[in-house]
Amino acid sequence: MNYKIINGKLLISENGHIRIEEKDLYVNGNKLSFAEDKSVTYETMDASHKLIMPGLINMHTHAYMSVLRNYADDVDFGEWLFNRCMPVEDRLPKDAAYWTNLLAFAEMIKSGTTTFVDMHMFHRQSPLAAGAAGMRGYIGRGLVGEDLYTDGYSRFKEAIEEKEEFESDTMKFILSPHAIYSAGPKLMEQVVKESKDRGMLHQTHLSESVTEVEDCLKKYGKTPVELLRDIGFLDDETILAHCVQMRGDDMDILKETGATVVTNPASNAKLGNGFAPIKEMEEKGINLCVGTDGCASNNTLNMFREMGLLSLIHKGIHKSSTVMSAEAVVNFATVNAAKALHMEDKLGVIKEGAIADIIFLNLRTPSMYPENNPISALCYSANGSEVESVMINGKFVMKDNVLLTIDMDKVYYEVDKIVEKYL
Amino acid sequence: MNYKIINGKLLISENGHIRIEEKDLYVNGNKLSFAEDKSVTYETMDASHKLIMPGLINMHTHAYMSVLRNYADDVDFGEWLFNRCMPVEDRLPKDAAYWTNLLAFAEMIKSGTTTFVDMHMFHRQSPLAAGAAGMRGYIGRGLVGEDLYTDGYSRFKEAIEEKEEFESDTMKFILSPHAIYSAGPKLMEQVVKESKDRGMLHQTHLSESVTEVEDCLKKYGKTPVELLRDIGFLDDETILAHCVQMRGDDMDILKETGATVVTNPASNAKLGNGFAPIKEMEEKGINLCVGTDGCASNNTLNMFREMGLLSLIHKGIHKSSTVMSAEAVVNFATVNAAKALHMEDKLGVIKEGAIADIIFLNLRTPSMYPENNPISALCYSANGSEVESVMINGKFVMKDNVLLTIDMDKVYYEVDKIVEKYL
Repeated sequence: MNYKIINGKLLISENGHIRIEEKDLYVNGNKLSFAEDKSVTYETMDASHKLIMPGLINMHTHAYMSVLRNYADDVDFGEWLFNRCMPVEDRLPKDAAYWTNLLAFAEMIKSGTTTFVDMHMFHRQSPLAAGAAGMRGYIGRGLVGEDLYTDGYSRFKEAIEEKEEFESDTMKFILSPHAIYSAGPKLMEQVVKESKDRGMLHQTHLSESVTEVEDCLKKYGKTPVELLRDIGFLDDETILAHCVQMRGDDMDILKETGATVVTNPASNAKLGNGFAPIKEMEEKGINLCVGTDGCASNNTLNMFREMGLLSLIHKGIHKSSTVMSAEAVVNFATVNAAKALHMEDKLGVIKEGAIADIIFLNLRTPSMYPENNPISALCYSANGSEVESVMINGKFVMKDNVLLTIDMDKVYYEVDKIVEKYL
Repeated sequence: MNYKIINGKLLISENGHIRIEEKDLYVNGNKLSFAEDKSVTYETMDASHKLIMPGLINMHTHAYMSVLRNYADDVDFGEWLFNRCMPVEDRLPKDAAYWTNLLAFAEMIKSGTTTFVDMHMFHRQSPLAAGAAGMRGYIGRGLVGEDLYTDGYSRFKEAIEEKEEFESDTMKFILSPHAIYSAGPKLMEQVVKESKDRGMLHQTHLSESVTEVEDCLKKYGKTPVELLRDIGFLDDETILAHCVQMRGDDMDILKETGATVVTNPASNAKLGNGFAPIKEMEEKGINLCVGTDGCASNNTLNMFREMGLLSLIHKGIHKSSTVMSAEAVVNFATVNAAKALHMEDKLGVIKEGAIADIIFLNLRTPSMYPENNPISALCYSANGSEVESVMINGKFVMKDNVLLTIDMDKVYYEVDKIVEKYL
């Protein structure tokens, strides 16, 4: 299907600046264009009072964790991890994660996320569910152990099998060692080589808690950032979640290597890890993105909430109404993310030839009214419910608030059964 | 109309603790009951998969400011106030505020707020619009000047006229000197006497910015809190917005006097005033509530966003996952607010004989699923769009997502005209 979208307001991003333009937009197959192709037939869509923008890119999550939403809150980290989250993860059968992934994707789609970067632990379930939902995924089986080919092998094998079975235009795979405290330096080194050989990105959790940094300093005499730099893990194909606890030259190192940092403000605050030095990283010129983390530590996958939080937290910390502008945080969730995924000019933008991952927001709703500045609205007043229609790779997955790819009655039924049996 | 509400999950608050109970709820006129009155006829409502809770109480806002939503963001305070907000306020004709108030109430209702505490500057428009919308209002004409009976008189006259014209079961009036830098000590003293004589509460903005505190110290040799304490302004009929910049014994004084503090986390962060010491105030035992402030400085009136922000900011500041729990912030927005309004056991609770200000949230939506802990959901995963139906004083103002008291097409039409003419 091809679409001619008229009367909409388009969010156009160029060189880090965002403006709103009223002009027609064409969707030819899975590509965007500003020009009509006379040789194809279009379905015309009237987008009056709609803002059309790139779908949001959630750069760090664990989609399967949706079943742990609101399950372990206001407790200390040990209780959260060891007595709540991990026992459930241990009990869950693999195929349960198919349904909990679909629940996550429903929330993502409803709140305008079209691409997610995932780290998971249930073989095949994330790509299977993402395929069914029509989500664009960058997916990685979490890797742990000291050596990728011995104690880390079963997970590595799953990671590679997933890539071989599912890789497609909309589904990519990332090698994903869990963290420096769960995956040893040798494994990290092996991951870099394997990811380069296979043309894959690599991601990990880094410098999330004070304990992680202090243990690393004790064990290796280096910060986690220095450790990974020395291993050769850090380059422009690296995605680092968290980076809350920066020490010494850590930020300079991150800048030099070209690695991307994904901040997770809700999760970092909620688990008591504090606030990442995002303004300082921005000043260094590090590529910065934003993610929700999983539902056990957020507890929502709504990127609008995350964008608002990101701006407000850093304005508050720096006692400045001008830092971390609406434009900056929208860039975090769109163009910066596309850069991290090596999809610049293809994802995260509305431009000639870009991929048709777009969302339609209703501007005629109290939270968006008056239409003084829709860019501000995305950061400061939208709550995500303004998203009415979502197109991924040229196909609608939600239209006029109706989810087209996910049968929610079935999802609720299956998730209820999972909760009853395993939580 | 009387209602028998079956199959719902009720949020019950007792002695600071909240639990969920599944039982029938009756609405007899404007009162709640757990027992059927055999002498009346009920309309039965099936509330399966709904959470029924007290309507949220937004303890500090300026509803008329909705027209300034997304109009002055990411600029410094001087630009924001003197070049953006104030010129528009000066240009706006009085009756424009009727429509901008209605726009605000539409957003409040859609996101579950049933009571608002307002400080305004357009005579009669806030109560007129609140009456039309069916909102419960505690409304105050902002007072400025040195003497209530000379230079402050025109505004004081308006404040009293509004009370005389509009006071009712759902509409109360509060004497509202703007702030210590715009209303002198003598006027503040006069306000206390007038409010006591007339059985009114009194509110003001206090210790919002560093400049306010430093100027006060210079001028009076006292903190703003000390100044108001010495005047006799502070007692359990006082509502204080902001209280971000606490110095010396300020918090002890607030506790001793019984005054209520309303925190406005989004506004304080967004304008660069920082974070109020809420955990420390909680430890002192000060009565704490939460408000959104106006749309120029937030930019939303959605209390769900504000509750989430409140918990996450203070968890982040204190690097603790256990402070500012979901239960605590829900209390801020319900029972603590009712206490401040001297409406304990009447507002902010579902209990026998309480006023029927209740909201119905859909639990069968991704952000609320699974139903592990609906109390956590209110703080951490809900975005406000889960609110489907809203009852104020026993009457539905929204039912199944349809606003019953506000004609939004008319509101958009009028607000568009206002934007075109005056912004």
